[in-house]
Amino acid sequence: MKYSHLIFSYLLMSVSNAFITGRKSNNAASLMPRSNIASSSSSMMQSVVTNHEVVRVELGDDRSYPIYIGGKFEPSEGGAMLASHVHGNRCLIVTNDRVAPILLDKYVEMIESNGKQVDTLVLPDGEENKSIDVMTMVLDKAMELGLDRKVTFVALGGGVIGDMVGFSAAIYQRGVNFIQVPTTVMSMVDSSVGGKTGVNHPLGKNMVGAFYQPQCVYIDIDTLSTLPDRELQSGISEIIKYGLIQDADFFIWLEKNMDGLLNRNLEIFTYAIKRSCEIKAAVVEADEKEAGLRATLNLGHTFGHAIESGSGYGHWLHGEAVAIGTAMAAQMSAKMGWIEDSLVERIYNILLAAKLPLELPVNSPMDQETFLKLMSKDKKVANGQLRLILLKGELGNCVFTGDFDEQAMIDTIDTFVAECKGKSA
Amino acid sequence: MKYSHLIFSYLLMSVSNAFITGRKSNNAASLMPRSNIASSSSSMMQSVVTNHEVVRVELGDDRSYPIYIGGKFEPSEGGAMLASHVHGNRCLIVTNDRVAPILLDKYVEMIESNGKQVDTLVLPDGEENKSIDVMTMVLDKAMELGLDRKVTFVALGGGVIGDMVGFSAAIYQRGVNFIQVPTTVMSMVDSSVGGKTGVNHPLGKNMVGAFYQPQCVYIDIDTLSTLPDRELQSGISEIIKYGLIQDADFFIWLEKNMDGLLNRNLEIFTYAIKRSCEIKAAVVEADEKEAGLRATLNLGHTFGHAIESGSGYGHWLHGEAVAIGTAMAAQMSAKMGWIEDSLVERIYNILLAAKLPLELPVNSPMDQETFLKLMSKDKKVANGQLRLILLKGELGNCVFTGDFDEQAMIDTIDTFVAECKGKSA
Repeated sequence: MKYSHLIFSYLLMSVSNAFITGRKSNNAASLMPRSNIASSSSSMMQSVVTNHEVVRVELGDDRSYPIYIGGKFEPSEGGAMLASHVHGNRCLIVTNDRVAPILLDKYVEMIESNGKQVDTLVLPDGEENKSIDVMTMVLDKAMELGLDRKVTFVALGGGVIGDMVGFSAAIYQRGVNFIQVPTTVMSMVDSSVGGKTGVNHPLGKNMVGAFYQPQCVYIDIDTLSTLPDRELQSGISEIIKYGLIQDADFFIWLEKNMDGLLNRNLEIFTYAIKRSCEIKAAVVEADEKEAGLRATLNLGHTFGHAIESGSGYGHWLHGEAVAIGTAMAAQMSAKMGWIEDSLVERIYNILLAAKLPLELPVNSPMDQETFLKLMSKDKKVANGQLRLILLKGELGNCVFTGDFDEQAMIDTIDTFVAECKGKSA
Repeated sequence: MKYSHLIFSYLLMSVSNAFITGRKSNNAASLMPRSNIASSSSSMMQSVVTNHEVVRVELGDDRSYPIYIGGKFEPSEGGAMLASHVHGNRCLIVTNDRVAPILLDKYVEMIESNGKQVDTLVLPDGEENKSIDVMTMVLDKAMELGLDRKVTFVALGGGVIGDMVGFSAAIYQRGVNFIQVPTTVMSMVDSSVGGKTGVNHPLGKNMVGAFYQPQCVYIDIDTLSTLPDRELQSGISEIIKYGLIQDADFFIWLEKNMDGLLNRNLEIFTYAIKRSCEIKAAVVEADEKEAGLRATLNLGHTFGHAIESGSGYGHWLHGEAVAIGTAMAAQMSAKMGWIEDSLVERIYNILLAAKLPLELPVNSPMDQETFLKLMSKDKKVANGQLRLILLKGELGNCVFTGDFDEQAMIDTIDTFVAECKGKSA
């Protein structure tokens, strides 16, 4: 199959309220009362959303599941909700050593108080631990505890934990249930939704894994109150992506509400996360195994993964690398005349407003050769041909294609490399 | 869900000829001209089956696939057949160091001569190498070669290679295509069909893996000519199983043709393998993820796995342990009055005729406690309850149930343990 110049210009405007599963066409920008948003200015603690939202991911047969999104879940309410998705008697909560001191006891109690037997495992934090070896620790723990096929794994943490625990659930006894409890913006809007699980290989990011859907995703936005600013901003880069690839109105809403996001306004965050989950859910429903459309979620990621990998994991946060990658994709699209320069400017402005990096750092080890070598290992390469997600046309439109001007790509890489070398000289 | 006393008494008699995909109800025992079978008496080289057989596994959407079965494939014919299932330009043949010297060059040439680029990897032979670490060598090799998502892995070998390579295909870049080329009776009739892939965990057999279907299974019965007798017999124990659990006529046919099987008569072997694949395909079609019916394929396996695991992998061949396990399941079924003693006798007789072991060996480390501990880790345990496949009623009927007399199980274990202790005393 070839996906040259397929333009995906979906405007999947949808609303979903608590326990209402249907979607109706609407204007995303009009969903929230503007006056309220303008007046709410500071911390997450100020406003209280009493009802949670539910976005459903509809995948047919037994793989559909709800995403619960709320800012003030009652522990009893949340515990019952989670326990209802633990179909056996036992569950294993896996988290990392940064999240464990803050949240582990709370979640153990929430689920135990609903009559389930809970065991726990704390893994070392960090992208460098997203490996086959660390993932195997989950399997070892489950075997030592004698957990059978009816167990449910609970992934409590960011994207690394979610991807790794999801993958271990996919392969433990050929598949057991699991629940995603994402605790970072990045994992709430991206990695916890859609069933991509896996670990890194020393030669490439996310190269080992499975498509495997959770029983539910439980997003308590209140957990973001302890998230470092830099990680918050990293996650926002994925939120911006959703606007760019297919929802111009959402992008415009984000331009207007970036301060509220950075200030962790609960209502603004709830809407941004819900809208992101809705877009991701619709894309995953249409193309679960990434035959085409789903690849558009990787805007900026082919450049971004190369930057992450070439700079050594841990130097950049994923969303930061994606922000630079998005800037590169925008520049390249403009070089080919696919988008207006004014759109590139808006993209730079919103990424800057989100305090995201737009250039390679001084002394970056990245050069043209390194970029091309690492990009050639991208999972979207098919029969040796590189395929990219690029912007084309008006705001909110993108293409997934192998049919682009290679010189424009090389010029873009050279420009970014030269900028960074220029600074270090 | 509970599967107490569901009696599966299917008589899935089906015929499938070369490239004819439909099944029609028929009498399996009448498919082969008896006179021919009686007159063909010796080696595989004597008779020539010019046309191959095709059994189709119908799983809907894009997961259906053919099983090609033949005894005298022309290399050009076989190569074209295999290459037609390599959808990209490249494939990676993975085999073991016992099969490689005999078959690897042949298969490389068969596929290369059809225009595909072929790389190879040779793994150490043996059940003790069916581990996450050895499986990771396949992923490492694929990454080093820069193989992308369009690659096809080819598993050339017995069950260990098939399970391990199938699993690595399931998780490399979240899933690439693979082809099974089984080279042992055991892998031809059991492990290569139905999509169960995986590796062992130090604490349990096949505890890590995935359900993942191949693009095709290519069975060249001629490869059995170099298989050691003991492995041949081990595979026959799985063939006997198919008759026992659901096809009385096939069991009767096996009683009459056991000498032909042991003598590697090509026609007899082709029929036995085809019929086994048909039964397995029908079971997998009805219950791919083992919600119930598929578990019946594990007759003798819960006892058998415990024996394999408790004796140290490598002491028993899988089919040998399953033979003892089948004897135990038969004894236990008779103790509960579920089958006649005369049926137990027939089961013992056919296993003896196949030169399979029916008792634990002198000095076996297995005792009641070890049996119960290891059996409690079986994948069929649900919420702590052990479930077994037992025989019930006439020949060809079995049940998958957690509702059995536990004392009958313990008595059976004690009898087998005592017999072996008695001999060593």
